[in-house]
Amino acid sequence: MSFDRLWADLAPVGRTAGGGYRRFSWTGADTDARAWFTEAAAARGLDVRTDRNGNLWAWWGAPGPGAVATGSHLDSVPDGGAFDGPLGVASALAAVDELRRRGVAPARPLALVVFVEEEGGRFGVPCLGSRLSAGEIAPERARDLTDASGVTWERAMADAGLDPLAIGADPDTLGLLDAFVELHVEQGRALADTPHPVGVGSSIWPHGRWRMDFTGRADHAGTTRLTDRNDPMPPFAHAILAARSLAERHDARATVAKALISPNGTNAIPSLVSAWLDARAADEEALGAVVEGVREAAGQAAREHGVGLEMTNESRTPLVSFSHDLRDRLASVIGGGLPPSSDTGVPVLPARRPPSSGGASRGGGLPPSSDTKVPVLPARRPPSSGGASRGGGLPPSSDTGVPVLPTGAGHDAGVLAAHVPTAMLYVRNPTGVSHSPEEWARPDDCHAGVDALADVLQDLLTRPQGAVAR
Amino acid sequence: MSFDRLWADLAPVGRTAGGGYRRFSWTGADTDARAWFTEAAAARGLDVRTDRNGNLWAWWGAPGPGAVATGSHLDSVPDGGAFDGPLGVASALAAVDELRRRGVAPARPLALVVFVEEEGGRFGVPCLGSRLSAGEIAPERARDLTDASGVTWERAMADAGLDPLAIGADPDTLGLLDAFVELHVEQGRALADTPHPVGVGSSIWPHGRWRMDFTGRADHAGTTRLTDRNDPMPPFAHAILAARSLAERHDARATVAKALISPNGTNAIPSLVSAWLDARAADEEALGAVVEGVREAAGQAAREHGVGLEMTNESRTPLVSFSHDLRDRLASVIGGGLPPSSDTGVPVLPARRPPSSGGASRGGGLPPSSDTKVPVLPARRPPSSGGASRGGGLPPSSDTGVPVLPTGAGHDAGVLAAHVPTAMLYVRNPTGVSHSPEEWARPDDCHAGVDALADVLQDLLTRPQGAVAR
Repeated sequence: MSFDRLWADLAPVGRTAGGGYRRFSWTGADTDARAWFTEAAAARGLDVRTDRNGNLWAWWGAPGPGAVATGSHLDSVPDGGAFDGPLGVASALAAVDELRRRGVAPARPLALVVFVEEEGGRFGVPCLGSRLSAGEIAPERARDLTDASGVTWERAMADAGLDPLAIGADPDTLGLLDAFVELHVEQGRALADTPHPVGVGSSIWPHGRWRMDFTGRADHAGTTRLTDRNDPMPPFAHAILAARSLAERHDARATVAKALISPNGTNAIPSLVSAWLDARAADEEALGAVVEGVREAAGQAAREHGVGLEMTNESRTPLVSFSHDLRDRLASVIGGGLPPSSDTGVPVLPARRPPSSGGASRGGGLPPSSDTKVPVLPARRPPSSGGASRGGGLPPSSDTGVPVLPTGAGHDAGVLAAHVPTAMLYVRNPTGVSHSPEEWARPDDCHAGVDALADVLQDLLTRPQGAVAR
Repeated sequence: MSFDRLWADLAPVGRTAGGGYRRFSWTGADTDARAWFTEAAAARGLDVRTDRNGNLWAWWGAPGPGAVATGSHLDSVPDGGAFDGPLGVASALAAVDELRRRGVAPARPLALVVFVEEEGGRFGVPCLGSRLSAGEIAPERARDLTDASGVTWERAMADAGLDPLAIGADPDTLGLLDAFVELHVEQGRALADTPHPVGVGSSIWPHGRWRMDFTGRADHAGTTRLTDRNDPMPPFAHAILAARSLAERHDARATVAKALISPNGTNAIPSLVSAWLDARAADEEALGAVVEGVREAAGQAAREHGVGLEMTNESRTPLVSFSHDLRDRLASVIGGGLPPSSDTGVPVLPARRPPSSGGASRGGGLPPSSDTKVPVLPARRPPSSGGASRGGGLPPSSDTGVPVLPTGAGHDAGVLAAHVPTAMLYVRNPTGVSHSPEEWARPDDCHAGVDALADVLQDLLTRPQGAVAR
């Protein structure tokens, strides 16, 4: 399968000695990864364009209204895995090959898209490329974002040969899309114990990042009496522990995984600790309770230690429910084969059912269980009973229906969902590990992902003009 | 006073935008600081030599047995202050000027010394230059020490034009010394509320550094269930809090001020947190209780979170009691003027008393109060009654005697004390702040320090050959 060749070509790009990846936006590794995409798309006769925000679009058919888009991102977290992002991009390219192998003649334009800075791994704000295009972040704010070395987005983008003064909302491009489908490696074990290599996304938990600046006073760690200290480390520690215990209480996720300690000398009480809280929960109420709880605990400890605390929300994404129409259509196509095509000569398997009507595209609680016996997994899962094994908690699908699952992970699809009917496909992850060099998916599951994406695209591309989903 | 000119010349070297200093060994700033010393010494007709470990020795008189040495270091902690180290070096140079102004004809050689890497700010092991010369660290271990960028001591020293294969014990140089006196800014407020600009050191608390490596597993912070995590951050937080509470319980100092989090991404559970514990206490028993307590608390938390913990002692210095002879002699000279000189024509004030006999130079509890009514301040001070003010706790000297004080800070003098009769002078620090850009001493107190050092050196240099102290 052409996927394997694409995957092998991309594998060395930005790989570290530890086997993980550092593909930060606008760095050499990023340039190489973008060149890999551009060359692979050009080799397939696709027309590659860079939009005003640096996102790449490779078009099959002239760009125009009613288009279907698929894709993901190529950037990584520090020492991330190979799959998070690139799997969706490589699968999109391979799906084009598969559609051509099948002889599919699209009735609509298809765009393969690569969004920049999805992880926020360099500049701190996740989904920056899609947020810019969707008009969800001010261009001035994006330009001023800095990386760990103080380099601004504006400078980095200019150094990469693009015009940072041109960034901003891009309704002309997003307005062409009738549907967006993002394929992604699963970042959990919901599929691991099921017979299904591919699942369909239902929603993305509300989530966000908060920066906590604990301001103390530099002093000698060996001589300064405890009562004379303004040491930001103990309040920082209380914030870490509060995040953990509040996440337990609210069945949420709350993590302090990044901190910058200044000056970070063994015998110098720090003058500043900046720490980041990543928090996610099944609903806004739980998310708010977690964040406010951390703020309260950290603030109380900061007062006790004579330390200043400023807590800044750097990003916040409300609950995203993907298009119910599109979700059900994907589940139907994947679970039962392609619905009958009414306007092409391509032979397809009979659909089990016509696409159902669905709910709104964003907000408003969890999607109801679909009427095709597709099990909709609960967004709030009870904590597992402990022990060393990963997984548990999620019931395996007991029928041939495709699992439909919520996730705590943010994606460009979550940003686009407010503007375009959007859906996600997840490829099974046997360990559930992600954002780690150990992140992995079986090759045959990746191939099944390509086939599923090709099925879905074939269904969408061969529908006559008019909305493909609500 | 020549001190002011020396001080002004050194001030810009390695100064950061925030007003602090980054003078790390073998960097450009270090090279400049060493050149400042070499030029100032050469301008005074001193013979400057670099020993096998990179320490600088400027000799007044031919190097030979019975020498007296004074000096300190020029390197800094990250964003450290101007005084910690350089005050002792600049004062040594200025004291030579003062001795000459007085017309003192030394009966012994005088060496001004600059020890390298006292802070361990770049390579992690404090007092590395003096430890190497004293044979207290293996040359192989020193050569392999790495800085934050992975550069070894061997490489850095070679790049500075010195031979790292030549490092090691230097009994030929240390064996020449009959006494070593280090002048240092006080790193606390023991002198601040007394009328004394200068105090004399009694002892250095036992102290050390321990590295704690918390090994977890990288994973996605947004999707990994709490029960599936091996997150090193909560055990790290418990270590921070345990250090603080154990220090309170044992009236000690215990600080976690440095940590390296890997990969340090907002949404990536860390695979590794390396944190350093700096611990100091009035006696070995209290120090051991603090360190074992932190080990126990961190280990317990690590087990609960499925995280590995390795705790490595990187340096440990036992209780140092400075030479009682030398301590009492210094207190006498500073408190009452110079003792009668028996072999030079230099007129001196009568001494209040002859030097007393004293105890051993290292180990063995706190020095007894001297018989000159010099108040020996307690090594264990009761915690202050709280509130916002620094200071309190130490009684001001109630008579004309010079305060004699213990310290929690390590110094090259603490290393040399096991090999050479050694003493320290402290210059008053009005805020007590150290290891910070805010570290400060009043200019007139600095001048008083130079005068006191000159008095002490005059006393020692004009004694006939034979031990100056035990």
